[in-house]
Amino acid sequence: MFTEISADEHDRQLELHGPLTAAVRRLVEAGISTGADSETIRQAQLAVEAIAETLEQQRHDGPRTMRHAVTGRPVVLADPVIGVRNAIAPPLTVQHTESGRCWTEFTLGAPYEGPPGRVHGGICALVLDHILGEVASDGLRQPRFTGTLTLKYLRATPLGRLRAEAWVERIEGIKAFARGQILDDEGVTVEAEGIFIAPAWAREAG
Amino acid sequence: MFTEISADEHDRQLELHGPLTAAVRRLVEAGISTGADSETIRQAQLAVEAIAETLEQQRHDGPRTMRHAVTGRPVVLADPVIGVRNAIAPPLTVQHTESGRCWTEFTLGAPYEGPPGRVHGGICALVLDHILGEVASDGLRQPRFTGTLTLKYLRATPLGRLRAEAWVERIEGIKAFARGQILDDEGVTVEAEGIFIAPAWAREAG
Repeated sequence: MFTEISADEHDRQLELHGPLTAAVRRLVEAGISTGADSETIRQAQLAVEAIAETLEQQRHDGPRTMRHAVTGRPVVLADPVIGVRNAIAPPLTVQHTESGRCWTEFTLGAPYEGPPGRVHGGICALVLDHILGEVASDGLRQPRFTGTLTLKYLRATPLGRLRAEAWVERIEGIKAFARGQILDDEGVTVEAEGIFIAPAWAREAG
Repeated sequence: MFTEISADEHDRQLELHGPLTAAVRRLVEAGISTGADSETIRQAQLAVEAIAETLEQQRHDGPRTMRHAVTGRPVVLADPVIGVRNAIAPPLTVQHTESGRCWTEFTLGAPYEGPPGRVHGGICALVLDHILGEVASDGLRQPRFTGTLTLKYLRATPLGRLRAEAWVERIEGIKAFARGQILDDEGVTVEAEGIFIAPAWAREAG
């Protein structure tokens, strides 16, 4: 269903785009924290527009989602949670254990802040939707889309170093029931449970 | 509880930072869509780093959240959903009707994509958490934080022009029960309901 990407080409894309995306992430954060005068801000704006224009001159017309030739997993370079080419993504690197669980450790700074010093509740939802979706779809190999997602916020999640984990509780026909949580040093801050459903086209193909 | 920002200073911040943030948003999208050669990518990376470094030389040490002198509402310039200084934010401009409802119309492009051509489920959750939180806290004037949030995905949400709306169903003591939805041209794609709770410090202050 997806175009294959070789392991070499995948590594090449990561090496090529990872540093640019990291630089753009730094720029996003600088835009929030800067106290530069208006002339400096205006010059920065013009310089950023010039870079964007250069990059836009050659468009990448290939698919944004491909299948990794070795792991068999979709490669989603542009994803807003894990995408190596998307500066919105923290990005998360989701680990898959042999027992089928997923976990990831990551750092959220100023761009993800809601209340002062705390992660925006919707960003917690974004992270949990993603990691529950990954575990429910066996590392994205069995397409299953979010049906329902319930989040319970036990306490505020501080900015900084965090962990998220998810596991499948059971599978019933086309539905996978997944659970997960976000943790800081003190324990769980947000719990999630979700039902993920195989789309009709995947059921027919399966 | 928050430092006040005058209407003039607020407008000045919007005029100063809005165009820079828009340029960074364009750059985020260019990073996803570009097919430029490796030399161009590498040059872009160095140029972006140089701009970030310039902006970082003067830090803005004031509070990231202030209270607007005229509307009385918090001004959250860095917020990842509505922040004028945050390139992660689409950004949403949330409208408050006299009857107490909230709505917003916005466009989501490639940076918010999950499955091909569709909005990432977690981005829908981010938008709904935010707009339900705004309506539940009376335009952020009565602090109430997300307690639980339940999302029901009726069908995939296409990238492009969308609408989100939210309203309070009832208030019981420290809890506000809110509902909302995301819609495309054909109708509702995701429904949400949430319970938002006044934090202890706000109850004591109130």
